[in-house]
Amino acid sequence: MAKSLPVSPLASSLPALGVVPGVRLGAVAAGIRYHGRTDLVVAEFIEGTTVAGVFTQSKCPGAPVDWSRKALTGGSARALVVNAGNANVFTGQAGVETCRITAIAEAGLAGCSPQEVFLASTGVIGEILPADRITKALPELHAGLSETGWEDAARGIMTTDTFPKAALRKVEIEGVSVTIQGIAKGSGMIAPDMATMLGFVATDASLPAPVLQTLLARGITGSFNSITVDSDTSTSDMVLLFATGYAGNRIISSADDPALAAFRDALNGLLLDLALMVVRDGEGATKQIKITVNSAVSNASAREVAKAIANSPLVKTAVAGEDANWGRVVMAVGKSGEPADRDRLSIAIGGVIIARDGTVVEGYDETPVVAHMKGREIDIVVDLGLGNGTATMWSCDLTHGYIDINGSYRS
Amino acid sequence: MAKSLPVSPLASSLPALGVVPGVRLGAVAAGIRYHGRTDLVVAEFIEGTTVAGVFTQSKCPGAPVDWSRKALTGGSARALVVNAGNANVFTGQAGVETCRITAIAEAGLAGCSPQEVFLASTGVIGEILPADRITKALPELHAGLSETGWEDAARGIMTTDTFPKAALRKVEIEGVSVTIQGIAKGSGMIAPDMATMLGFVATDASLPAPVLQTLLARGITGSFNSITVDSDTSTSDMVLLFATGYAGNRIISSADDPALAAFRDALNGLLLDLALMVVRDGEGATKQIKITVNSAVSNASAREVAKAIANSPLVKTAVAGEDANWGRVVMAVGKSGEPADRDRLSIAIGGVIIARDGTVVEGYDETPVVAHMKGREIDIVVDLGLGNGTATMWSCDLTHGYIDINGSYRS
Repeated sequence: MAKSLPVSPLASSLPALGVVPGVRLGAVAAGIRYHGRTDLVVAEFIEGTTVAGVFTQSKCPGAPVDWSRKALTGGSARALVVNAGNANVFTGQAGVETCRITAIAEAGLAGCSPQEVFLASTGVIGEILPADRITKALPELHAGLSETGWEDAARGIMTTDTFPKAALRKVEIEGVSVTIQGIAKGSGMIAPDMATMLGFVATDASLPAPVLQTLLARGITGSFNSITVDSDTSTSDMVLLFATGYAGNRIISSADDPALAAFRDALNGLLLDLALMVVRDGEGATKQIKITVNSAVSNASAREVAKAIANSPLVKTAVAGEDANWGRVVMAVGKSGEPADRDRLSIAIGGVIIARDGTVVEGYDETPVVAHMKGREIDIVVDLGLGNGTATMWSCDLTHGYIDINGSYRS
Repeated sequence: MAKSLPVSPLASSLPALGVVPGVRLGAVAAGIRYHGRTDLVVAEFIEGTTVAGVFTQSKCPGAPVDWSRKALTGGSARALVVNAGNANVFTGQAGVETCRITAIAEAGLAGCSPQEVFLASTGVIGEILPADRITKALPELHAGLSETGWEDAARGIMTTDTFPKAALRKVEIEGVSVTIQGIAKGSGMIAPDMATMLGFVATDASLPAPVLQTLLARGITGSFNSITVDSDTSTSDMVLLFATGYAGNRIISSADDPALAAFRDALNGLLLDLALMVVRDGEGATKQIKITVNSAVSNASAREVAKAIANSPLVKTAVAGEDANWGRVVMAVGKSGEPADRDRLSIAIGGVIIARDGTVVEGYDETPVVAHMKGREIDIVVDLGLGNGTATMWSCDLTHGYIDINGSYRS
């Protein structure tokens, strides 16, 4: 499984991580599914930590999603428990019970209410997640929690991921230095529809939960909600953002406050970093694809067109084959159902305009585009020539690796 | 290209074809793209032939789609010209001109108006389709037209198809024996959104164009619009239905007339036959998947859920891997966005109920399901437990073959 997969050729190495004062983390091998690797992660937050969250829009979410969505209504977080290898999805009352037992056990160790414990699981669907494996492992895990446990945590939440994912930013709020640091996992069952994998971000900034929620919801749109690997939305996805308040900045009551400008930019950048790592670890991915759609009738329309291109198996296999088959981009625009006028459409790949006003440009020389297609980062720009709407989506190519991984995931 | 692909393991052999009085067909090697094979097909219809058509819903349709859509408004058909290998899509004014020149040349040979000439093209997008290759080949092609040319026509329209596709029915209208016979092509860029590939069906029944149009539009819903190979809707797809009137049955002015009951059934059956051949020739397909969704809030809702399952790369790769990974079916139901209640959901594969009311059934024995997954025809039934809506979709598995074919189509 995860351990036997070759590391993605698009992998980035883990940055030098810092600490987020007020957060201690750790990971342990609880033997839930994997052997010889960590698969259970805990993060503990100091009292007063606020929290924001976004969750999968799946109609069949996992029990931990239900749990965390409900916990979020309290606005306060003291602990996070994440396991890898079993998604605790479609497990009926047993799954609900596992959540309850886990939260109570963790609350006992962290000295908080179960409603301040957040839960997340990813992995196989439909298998019972035994609570006792988790509760047995928690005390030892707690004994080892550390402010420097971020890398262990990033590794412990991996499933088919081939590299751990983390990012950090340092920024100021009214002269007070704050850190934002996060980890993520995800490489398949990724589609742009609310949060699309697991992401956990913490900051020592002091921010009320409603402000945090607004910042996260906005930041997700251009990051985790703008990536796709295979158009399949998971039942388990969530991104949580914790703010410990340790930095002691002045409390700011509006997400639009100019004092938060740098923080907003930093958060958005960090979320995009993490999201792109997920694309770059897309199952079987060998190339990252950036799709920009301009001049649509609206931003929402641009987004739908970009999504149709990003999810098209024919576009994705063409990129895998290093084939500058722009005709498939035309096809994908056409199938999106969004307003488009064939005779105003322009397409550029790698900065070279290939087609303009509904036909290939005169004397089109494929040579520079062919060279671009051999690279790791493919850039497709579509101009619809209709309005001012714009959107960017990121995807990856569709290769034999995807088939290999997903034709035998459970075996 | 097409010739070098191994024949689909799901291929059916061509049935013994008959003739449709009033229709003569033929194929020739015009050297448009392929070498050493036929790639240009003509069908000629006797005077008085009525016609119905359905076309791709793509916003970027090919010039031949525009042409035939317009020709259809006349309600009369005397000829059909189809080429394989070049879709004449995104070719601007040159593409329009190729259509006009082709139709005029064909009209001269058939002795009809250009508006009675229907055109269809499939193949690569964005390359100019040279009209002279077609017009040069048409006279020889005409000289060889024959009532028994159906098999040649079925082969001449193939692109990445690995086997020719044809079906026939014999049926009576008020005691008069009539024949319905059709051919189809398609194996990739197939998605359920109006007509999804090329299909040409002819009958010697006498039917006014509006009746024919109603019958075709209804028949498409449960056949060509209920299949998917890769969720990618083509720019070029159309299904045309021609009625020569040769059989001399009484003219019937309503598609709902009971006298047409047997004809309707036969037509629907034939359209489904052809559509399933397309799925069974899905690029890289090794297994056909039938997805039935019951107890949805409406038929339309059931259809969306079935489509989400049918298009899911994770479901399709699981089938390819003979993995009874029903959790991915749960995922696909969840992502469809349609009303679904996890705790009422049931899933059966190969007739074995695996999950019921939101959890796996007690004592679930995977053995018979594993055996079913090793077969060629995979049967998935989802019961949403909400209402009376029902729908069936057909798909195929996603294999290395799909990547092989589409990673190098143009090379």
